[in-house]
Amino acid sequence: MIPEDDRGLLLGDGLFETILATDGRLEHAEAHVDRMIRGCAVLGLQPPAREAALAAAERALADAGPGAGRAAVRLTLTAGSGRGLERPPGAQPRLLASASALRKPAAAVTLATAAVRRNESSPASRLKTLSYLDNILARAQARAAGADEALMLNTRGEIACAAAANLFWIEGGRLYTPVLECGVLDGIMRAQALAGAAAAGTETLEVRAGREALDRAEAVFLTNSLVGVQPVTALDGRTLGAHPLAVELSSRCR
Amino acid sequence: MIPEDDRGLLLGDGLFETILATDGRLEHAEAHVDRMIRGCAVLGLQPPAREAALAAAERALADAGPGAGRAAVRLTLTAGSGRGLERPPGAQPRLLASASALRKPAAAVTLATAAVRRNESSPASRLKTLSYLDNILARAQARAAGADEALMLNTRGEIACAAAANLFWIEGGRLYTPVLECGVLDGIMRAQALAGAAAAGTETLEVRAGREALDRAEAVFLTNSLVGVQPVTALDGRTLGAHPLAVELSSRCR
Repeated sequence: MIPEDDRGLLLGDGLFETILATDGRLEHAEAHVDRMIRGCAVLGLQPPAREAALAAAERALADAGPGAGRAAVRLTLTAGSGRGLERPPGAQPRLLASASALRKPAAAVTLATAAVRRNESSPASRLKTLSYLDNILARAQARAAGADEALMLNTRGEIACAAAANLFWIEGGRLYTPVLECGVLDGIMRAQALAGAAAAGTETLEVRAGREALDRAEAVFLTNSLVGVQPVTALDGRTLGAHPLAVELSSRCR
Repeated sequence: MIPEDDRGLLLGDGLFETILATDGRLEHAEAHVDRMIRGCAVLGLQPPAREAALAAAERALADAGPGAGRAAVRLTLTAGSGRGLERPPGAQPRLLASASALRKPAAAVTLATAAVRRNESSPASRLKTLSYLDNILARAQARAAGADEALMLNTRGEIACAAAANLFWIEGGRLYTPVLECGVLDGIMRAQALAGAAAAGTETLEVRAGREALDRAEAVFLTNSLVGVQPVTALDGRTLGAHPLAVELSSRCR
């Protein structure tokens, strides 16, 4: 239980991470905690101690019981207690950790472009913050359009990401993904996919690109920490094919 | 205390209202509750019962002790418990109410334009949601620039609002404020100011206008439920004067 004057609850003032655990082992836990610490610097929050945050994640996983199969460990850091837009001086951030069982991810998903856009003018667009309502609304719009997940453009109309994943596309043998400045999270699987593709000899480009770039794409896939690499089989009703590079990255990125 | 799996905490999934109480009496409580209920329709949340929400606000005020002076009663409605972007079927929203003493508002404020913009592509930009981090960041930017409050433009560069207030300006004897579609809250004091100005024989216009419109303004003021009408004495370093209409509206809008 957390107090009713917690700024995470009152104003979405804080950050979170979702860490995959397989068979009782956390995956990329250090990278997740390091990203949370970098996010604290952006938001002006006192960061958690690295070892304490890692220990909290391990403890939540152990408390959840026998470690077979897949689980998600969520670390939540709120700005602590205090009302009003301005944080009270000396507010102590609150770190929470919890684990929950995770179903096998869908083998592939369909996308629909959401009307809600990523607000790349805000530093929050590049962080996993507790103010996540726009992503909830984008997902709901995609579901209402009959798709599984949303394609979110930013306010300039550039491709940004999915509601809960980074987005990649392949065209002419090259791998493309939006630059972080488009308003996207510096995803841990995103970095893995970029490195994996480069290791496989594929040219990778971080770009600013309009929605029409996806009409020329041979394949599209999503990445996030819980699903790894997830192929997109249709975008706004247009069928998309599989691609050997996506298949290869699926096995490299875990 | 609230449970750690509350979606208000986890994802900023919910709404709030801040109601002024003076000498133990709630001001415009029905209008606040009705706005929360309208917001629920936009977000797809089951709305609270009107009478129950009003009673919760009254009870929070009574519990806070003797009713002399000013207080703020906050109603918070979260989407209930549940992880993930999609709300679990049958999730029960959670209604919280609390009261806190309120200091006398500043007689006037200075503004600085924030880099963080209102995301008018999102329905959340027209609601008081629990995903309020962009407003926190905009306020922090204004404070870092030496001002009291932020002027927020929307992503098209149009004037939207302050971080915690609606915004008005006066030019050529007319009263201007951004249309709601610019990404602004349908403020209760905003409506009072528009009605008050019309009653005083002043032409009022809800407009889309770029930042430069404020360079021509004779006076600028803010409105919100807790401060009523609050004059702006400087914007980005340019001194702004008082105006008889703002003074008159100060006494009309409470």
